[in-house]
Amino acid sequence: MDLLNETLSKIRPLDEAAMENARERQDQLTKPAGSLGVLEEISIKLAGITGEVINNVDKKTVVVMAGDHGVVDEGVSAFPREVTPQMVANFVNGGAAINVLSRHVGANVIVVDVGVAVPIENASVLSRKVKSGTANFAKEPAMTRDEAVKAIEVGIEVANELIDDGVRLLATGDMGIGNTTPSSAILVALTGTPVDGMVGRGTGIGNGDLDHKKKVIADAIGFHGPDRNDPIDVLAKVGGLEIAALAGLVLGAAARRTPVVIDGFISGAGALVAGHLSPLSRDYMIASHVSVEPGHRAILDELGLRPMLYMDMRLGEGTGAALAMGMVDAATKVIS
Amino acid sequence: MDLLNETLSKIRPLDEAAMENARERQDQLTKPAGSLGVLEEISIKLAGITGEVINNVDKKTVVVMAGDHGVVDEGVSAFPREVTPQMVANFVNGGAAINVLSRHVGANVIVVDVGVAVPIENASVLSRKVKSGTANFAKEPAMTRDEAVKAIEVGIEVANELIDDGVRLLATGDMGIGNTTPSSAILVALTGTPVDGMVGRGTGIGNGDLDHKKKVIADAIGFHGPDRNDPIDVLAKVGGLEIAALAGLVLGAAARRTPVVIDGFISGAGALVAGHLSPLSRDYMIASHVSVEPGHRAILDELGLRPMLYMDMRLGEGTGAALAMGMVDAATKVIS
Repeated sequence: MDLLNETLSKIRPLDEAAMENARERQDQLTKPAGSLGVLEEISIKLAGITGEVINNVDKKTVVVMAGDHGVVDEGVSAFPREVTPQMVANFVNGGAAINVLSRHVGANVIVVDVGVAVPIENASVLSRKVKSGTANFAKEPAMTRDEAVKAIEVGIEVANELIDDGVRLLATGDMGIGNTTPSSAILVALTGTPVDGMVGRGTGIGNGDLDHKKKVIADAIGFHGPDRNDPIDVLAKVGGLEIAALAGLVLGAAARRTPVVIDGFISGAGALVAGHLSPLSRDYMIASHVSVEPGHRAILDELGLRPMLYMDMRLGEGTGAALAMGMVDAATKVIS
Repeated sequence: MDLLNETLSKIRPLDEAAMENARERQDQLTKPAGSLGVLEEISIKLAGITGEVINNVDKKTVVVMAGDHGVVDEGVSAFPREVTPQMVANFVNGGAAINVLSRHVGANVIVVDVGVAVPIENASVLSRKVKSGTANFAKEPAMTRDEAVKAIEVGIEVANELIDDGVRLLATGDMGIGNTTPSSAILVALTGTPVDGMVGRGTGIGNGDLDHKKKVIADAIGFHGPDRNDPIDVLAKVGGLEIAALAGLVLGAAARRTPVVIDGFISGAGALVAGHLSPLSRDYMIASHVSVEPGHRAILDELGLRPMLYMDMRLGEGTGAALAMGMVDAATKVIS
């Protein structure tokens, strides 16, 4: 059996008995029942995920999946494609916001080249390139179905390697100039909602460009006709390599009963694909923040997740998820 | 000049030049302008508060002000008054949620007896008792005007002592069985809003008790007629000793150009009093979470503050503020 299907078959429901034990323990602690709100809910969810009431998430890693997007040729982004490898270099040099915030919460950062357009010559970047950027989905499918599966499997493999290495809490992060466009396209294609309200300014395009971005997305979905009941078809036709890998990371975490904190809009699109491939995988996701990007709320609602942080962030990289990892850590401490 | 008026006279506007320098620095960092949202706003606010673009809040303290409430005799609380000294003991033993969460963010906790009803024989509790609990404001004023001023000055003194000791970030916390009742009363009295929507279940009273609690508050305000333009009159007639001390802590922090993170509903009531005594003091406040207690949102709106954390917490003690201290710390790091 291939890795994707094997992983999907391993995702099981939460451990209800462990959750009940965690609930009982929370109610015995010196405080009015439920008064720590989401911190208590997370501690109970973690019990369901791991099977243990007391959890330790000291070893945590933010995984930044990087990829480029052919659709940038359509003028949908405020930044040029060259920024993707520049930021990848910045991440491994420790100089980006995600590095600062990960250090703040005691998390490692790993950067995976799933599909950057140019060669990345840096031993600190995990080299798992499936393809040198997607094709321009305004004109042809972003990738083949095989490439989409391979990119998902990159995420599964990374999750497995990290968990084998003792990591107990994962977070999703992304880098890819233009990647709000495929994220919106995935959201629209998987949910069947109209593009209005699901497409935003990304890193900061103006009004005219926003209308154009909406048209590019709506036209591509009309042209390719992705099958909303087949998330891999959606990924292949209008998705992204790093988004596929993020979906894989979530599935890999769920199959190994490991919690995974979901960052903003792009990570949310990956999580949405994971949730459509395996509805049970949603139980292993922990939402972090609600992004400025308008479709993010729709993704969280679709996944049944509630964000903790309202901080108007829209950087990606995993920055919101890193902050939320600190909250998950706090949740393990209030039940200990 | 007395300490309160001296403190009020020292509260100055934010340093606009330092804020502008912080804004410029944020825009030079490797990220789309504004993409770190509230983290950037906090870093700019801190610059305005301290006058420095780069700030270090490693030394931080949560101040838990404790007091009892005569109005508990009216049956407005789910817990008996005896719980106040029990929790005070728990705090100094390090066993409460606030201790766990403060350790998590690297903050100290200090507990101040401003008005616990029984003697507190514990050298680890800062003994600043103004009065052994307020009087039952359903029948008489909670305290005299002098006592209200003294309790505010306790907060100012504690702020001064901590800042003299090198603390660079303060947070408010509270302990006092029954203290959502005076907090709602203060909110209603200072803003002139009707009690509906401003009174909640505290630690968990039922529907009938909630109606009774509303009536107790509305009747007391009708009976005492606190002057909404005189926050000290409001405190004296329907307030609480620990709430007055929290107002003082905020004012003391503002006078010393030190940021103070505001916890939930009770701390919010203290901050509201501070904001009415000195509108400029609002600029020194950082909101943390939005509590389940319904009046909390009204307080934040009135103070012009936006909370970062949506975690359905309703414990008090400073627990939400402690978590938000971690965010303030993160904000200092993203600009460093």
